[in-house]
Amino acid sequence: MRVLKGALAAVVSLVVVLAPAHAVEEDGYQLWLRYRPLQQTGQAQQQAQTISYAGKASPTVRAAIDELRRGLQGMTGKAPAVATTVASGAIVLAKAGALPQGFSADGLADLGREGYLLKSASVNGKRVTVIAANDDIGLLYGAFGLLRALDTGKGLAALDERSAPKLQLRVLNHWDNLDRTVERGYSGQSIWNWWELPDIRERQYVDYARANASLGINGTVLNNVNSKAEILTAPWIAKVAALADVLRPYGIKVYLSARWSTPLELKETTTADPLAPEVAAWWRAKADEIYRAIPDFGGFLVKANSEGQPGPQDYHRTHADGANMLAAALAPHKGIVMWRAFVYAAEKPDDRAKQAYDEFKPLDGKFAPNVMVQVKNGAIDFQPREPFHPLFGAMPRTPLMMEFQITKEYLGFAMHMAYLGPLFEEVLKADTMQRPNGLTVAQVLEDTEHGQRLTGMAGVANIGSSRTWSGSHFDQANWYAYGRFAWDPQGDSRAFAREWATQTFSREPQAVTQIVDMMMRSREAVVDYMTPLGLHHLMDTGHHHGPGPWVDNLGRPDWNPTYYHKADKKGIGFDRTATGSNALAQYAPGVAKRWADPRTTPDELLLWFHHLPWDYAMPSGRTLWTELVARYDRGVAEAESLRARWEKLKPLVDERRYDEVAQRLDTQVKEARWWRDASVAYFQSVSGLPLPPGAKKPGRTLEQYKAIKFPYAAGHH
Amino acid sequence: MRVLKGALAAVVSLVVVLAPAHAVEEDGYQLWLRYRPLQQTGQAQQQAQTISYAGKASPTVRAAIDELRRGLQGMTGKAPAVATTVASGAIVLAKAGALPQGFSADGLADLGREGYLLKSASVNGKRVTVIAANDDIGLLYGAFGLLRALDTGKGLAALDERSAPKLQLRVLNHWDNLDRTVERGYSGQSIWNWWELPDIRERQYVDYARANASLGINGTVLNNVNSKAEILTAPWIAKVAALADVLRPYGIKVYLSARWSTPLELKETTTADPLAPEVAAWWRAKADEIYRAIPDFGGFLVKANSEGQPGPQDYHRTHADGANMLAAALAPHKGIVMWRAFVYAAEKPDDRAKQAYDEFKPLDGKFAPNVMVQVKNGAIDFQPREPFHPLFGAMPRTPLMMEFQITKEYLGFAMHMAYLGPLFEEVLKADTMQRPNGLTVAQVLEDTEHGQRLTGMAGVANIGSSRTWSGSHFDQANWYAYGRFAWDPQGDSRAFAREWATQTFSREPQAVTQIVDMMMRSREAVVDYMTPLGLHHLMDTGHHHGPGPWVDNLGRPDWNPTYYHKADKKGIGFDRTATGSNALAQYAPGVAKRWADPRTTPDELLLWFHHLPWDYAMPSGRTLWTELVARYDRGVAEAESLRARWEKLKPLVDERRYDEVAQRLDTQVKEARWWRDASVAYFQSVSGLPLPPGAKKPGRTLEQYKAIKFPYAAGHH
Repeated sequence: MRVLKGALAAVVSLVVVLAPAHAVEEDGYQLWLRYRPLQQTGQAQQQAQTISYAGKASPTVRAAIDELRRGLQGMTGKAPAVATTVASGAIVLAKAGALPQGFSADGLADLGREGYLLKSASVNGKRVTVIAANDDIGLLYGAFGLLRALDTGKGLAALDERSAPKLQLRVLNHWDNLDRTVERGYSGQSIWNWWELPDIRERQYVDYARANASLGINGTVLNNVNSKAEILTAPWIAKVAALADVLRPYGIKVYLSARWSTPLELKETTTADPLAPEVAAWWRAKADEIYRAIPDFGGFLVKANSEGQPGPQDYHRTHADGANMLAAALAPHKGIVMWRAFVYAAEKPDDRAKQAYDEFKPLDGKFAPNVMVQVKNGAIDFQPREPFHPLFGAMPRTPLMMEFQITKEYLGFAMHMAYLGPLFEEVLKADTMQRPNGLTVAQVLEDTEHGQRLTGMAGVANIGSSRTWSGSHFDQANWYAYGRFAWDPQGDSRAFAREWATQTFSREPQAVTQIVDMMMRSREAVVDYMTPLGLHHLMDTGHHHGPGPWVDNLGRPDWNPTYYHKADKKGIGFDRTATGSNALAQYAPGVAKRWADPRTTPDELLLWFHHLPWDYAMPSGRTLWTELVARYDRGVAEAESLRARWEKLKPLVDERRYDEVAQRLDTQVKEARWWRDASVAYFQSVSGLPLPPGAKKPGRTLEQYKAIKFPYAAGHH
Repeated sequence: MRVLKGALAAVVSLVVVLAPAHAVEEDGYQLWLRYRPLQQTGQAQQQAQTISYAGKASPTVRAAIDELRRGLQGMTGKAPAVATTVASGAIVLAKAGALPQGFSADGLADLGREGYLLKSASVNGKRVTVIAANDDIGLLYGAFGLLRALDTGKGLAALDERSAPKLQLRVLNHWDNLDRTVERGYSGQSIWNWWELPDIRERQYVDYARANASLGINGTVLNNVNSKAEILTAPWIAKVAALADVLRPYGIKVYLSARWSTPLELKETTTADPLAPEVAAWWRAKADEIYRAIPDFGGFLVKANSEGQPGPQDYHRTHADGANMLAAALAPHKGIVMWRAFVYAAEKPDDRAKQAYDEFKPLDGKFAPNVMVQVKNGAIDFQPREPFHPLFGAMPRTPLMMEFQITKEYLGFAMHMAYLGPLFEEVLKADTMQRPNGLTVAQVLEDTEHGQRLTGMAGVANIGSSRTWSGSHFDQANWYAYGRFAWDPQGDSRAFAREWATQTFSREPQAVTQIVDMMMRSREAVVDYMTPLGLHHLMDTGHHHGPGPWVDNLGRPDWNPTYYHKADKKGIGFDRTATGSNALAQYAPGVAKRWADPRTTPDELLLWFHHLPWDYAMPSGRTLWTELVARYDRGVAEAESLRARWEKLKPLVDERRYDEVAQRLDTQVKEARWWRDASVAYFQSVSGLPLPPGAKKPGRTLEQYKAIKFPYAAGHH
């Protein structure tokens, strides 16, 4: 009997460890385009028996039909046939001018080239679902819109939706180098296999295009803003052209980051002065060469005179001189220039937060019409929280483009869960107060006051060669949310999270609610355990991984965390009021006034704008010091809570993805404690104050935290 | 009617372009472990109704059972249940001592710890299939053996197979750097995500272990032979331990490349002299530290005093002094040292091909018993063809380990199809003539004359983060063939190709035959269009991509292609006979004598050993010059033929993989022509001879070929 019991125990233990032998594991590659079977497949099958398109199908329309078949096959179990006639149960793709007889497409004309309309209708007595648009790309977007509607539980029966993008340019910026490393990339290599291009066109490029088209992203800057001259040489233009060919049917234009000194470095000019005729001629010829290979090339993104990059100021010219010279070369081809406002120089030690405004505000109105100035969401550098950039609303005669960072250089890389939707939304909904009735950042971007000018948004991509694309499952949500906000800057981050979670993880309402709630709290948790109360730029040097509030020995003052927190025995915070750097003066008076007084400054921005004594009384009744420690502790508690909540989702999530997320959350808890402990240890060493009652003593000494080093860190090149 | 016809045409064109909407595309990730459905699933289901194992299942046995279930689910459509009793139709896993009553396992004892026996048998009147072994790892290898048998059409009914590895150490060498780049890697990044280790244990590590275990590979050196000190610090030992934990159940030990100067660089010793007591003590303590984390750690691989790496010669000590000091540190833990014989120094300008022998032959018998000397297959460096290394058979008192290169540094990277099975086989079957009755390289490795000594083979891995693992579908075959040869150095490359193609591409005999034939001819094609007739080391500088026979300006003479071909107005080839470097004297007299005379030297090695006039009369009746050009042309024709033959396979191969291979073959043809044209143009410029009648003029001028540059080439770090 004992033997038998042992043997039975062995069977049981075996059965427990055996995974289903044949299930295809969810590895994240399919992103939000998983198209899992609907509960009621019969009804959906009835409503999607055929796909009807009457014209000659362009590659874009073919992509729309392919996607509908793929999605409907997945969700209903049956791929619809394709027909040119309209039968009952058809999904009808139709462009304005070729709409089904008797179908009313009210408002279609207002939706522009990229908008679409989805409508359940009766046409000649037949029940059909119409995807109507003014152009092929609208049909593709509409196809994705229909699939999303179906996937998120809307059903086709009463579909009546119209959508058009509010910004013209919805662009990803890849900080991808030509050797396939990615600056601040935490998702493996660049997905651009430059070495094998143009010969090898990987299937993943198509899936990249599909994912972006599903969000309406219509442009991609392929290479790092810290650019190299080689990207503009003939072999690389051929590689870029091959990618452009793959992306074109999905409505995605390619752009390149241009290095200012390219012609000089290639020894094809003797200067890079934008006003030198030979330089302008070189760029005109280069643009002509590019457009011969890529007729719909988007244009250039330029980082100039920033962080050591060359630029027109090297020749005592302005940013406008530089941008306009390039714009003139691109204009005959309808190309544009995206000129970054992220500039700072060590020679101007006033307040780094002020420099972009100081340099660009005087240039308002001086840029050519095909130039956009691309402004980061905040004035420092993609911190967990920053106030909106003072340039928004301050350059009414210049089209401004938002630059968000989707890759989480400062929010835990691909390790920490930090859904950026709320960060994007917070910035976009911020009121610049540059108009009497208010003017949000989103409204500045949409530029409704002008109408014919360029509008756009850029997101620094978190896409790489890793099987999850974004380095982790939850980081895919940041790509998703970025794309949705680029389509509609007045969108809702919680709604986007819900869409994403439903398509990506589960249609089970309980699971969706839990996951969305985790996502919505996750970014604030990171703020709290890294940089609470308006602190910023406290990360360790170079790789930006982990805490380094003590760092004070770098080559430039404004690289040091101590420059930003200015903590000493008496207090902490950066005084940006009139008694300090007066960066506040760059904001509209309504904003500046509110933030000039710590009493009317939100806690979240307090130490961004104010240097306050450690015993400053917070609205909570605590001293600043006690509050600071409490915020750090709250962040850690939130990270622990994320981990605990995920545990509860175990029965509702497939095993592999459950496990992969759990591993990351374990690490997040560990690193949250490290951030908290190291920061508290450091600030305590500066303030000399005892830990508030009940606060836990850091696990190691400050010297031990300082000694931690990370050779070969990810994303640091 | 015209409209209707147009519409119909549109439908047709759409239908043509639509891929199946739901098929999971073959992307190569599953390697040869695809387990596609058998034609006769019923019979196989009958024979595999249950998996029986009576004991307590160790992680290794669990892995065996998991794999059997996965494979049988795939091939028969049904995953067998797991039981502890033996029923009819069972697959019985049994270790010696616990074999089913009445089952005769003749010869099992001779199969060692890793061998296995597969046998269809009747046990108590029940038809069963027995996998018998002496240890758990034998059961895992047996499970893979059974699945391979089934997959390649053997069936279970009359199975009677026994197999045991002929070498003890079957090891992969990853030239993977700590920043995830891979030296000479053409398959994306390192699969070791060092940055996220030890916290994140990726699922791919398990699949890596499965694939290797399926071949019997039982060791892996995780990091580049050009090693860094950090790998031996505590944070990295923790990362390595995490990988060791994942690989352990699959019988795979981890090893590390150790940098000679590690303790000195870490400032923990004042010298790296192997005879200094503080150095020996440091390594002893380091070994102890490693073994505390990884009790079954395999040991160190060392590249010392080679290509700028530090080593014991820096202190006027020998390789043996260095290896033995490390060996002493590892011996208490049963660890070993693999000491590379790949050495050459600029200060010894005689003939680079002679240096390893000159340095190591005198050390024969001076190495500790737990040291192996790891010798590349040839005396230069993994060229498309080299004669076997003269050290094989020349160090009878030292265990020698073969080092093959699986990654194709010199055979077209992951772009060209070049099945290396014939290269491995050619070397292994070469007769060193060091015994009166012959002694092949394989016999040297197997070391049957001694018995208790270490034996082994190393392969420089072609594994990376790319979805195909190896950078292309066909490069997987090189990993496969390497593993099979490591198990049996006297194996047959064609048989391995057939196994691989059947499991990987198709069981259709016509497809298999065609694919195997392409594979078998592919390496010779590369030899012909790159380095025919014994030429070698003609590649361009640094990245080793493309032809550079003209290069003569590098820092060391033996880095220059001109050093190796010695072509001038009069002739071509490296005289390694007594009138030249006399490298031939390093071979056994029988070999030396045959290769001393160009008349008895095989064409394939002619210019390796002889400098001959351009008008030398070849056995073909042609002059050497005419023959050389003909060989280049033959190589190009073969590349073109590979492409044409693949075209014919289109109906027999799944669409995605067909297309991905076709793209690479297109490029191979292009690059074969480039190699041929550039080489012919160059040698013509040297010989001053007219092109042979009918030979095609190169497409560009020599200067144009010389001007081609490849910044940011893959695998070059």
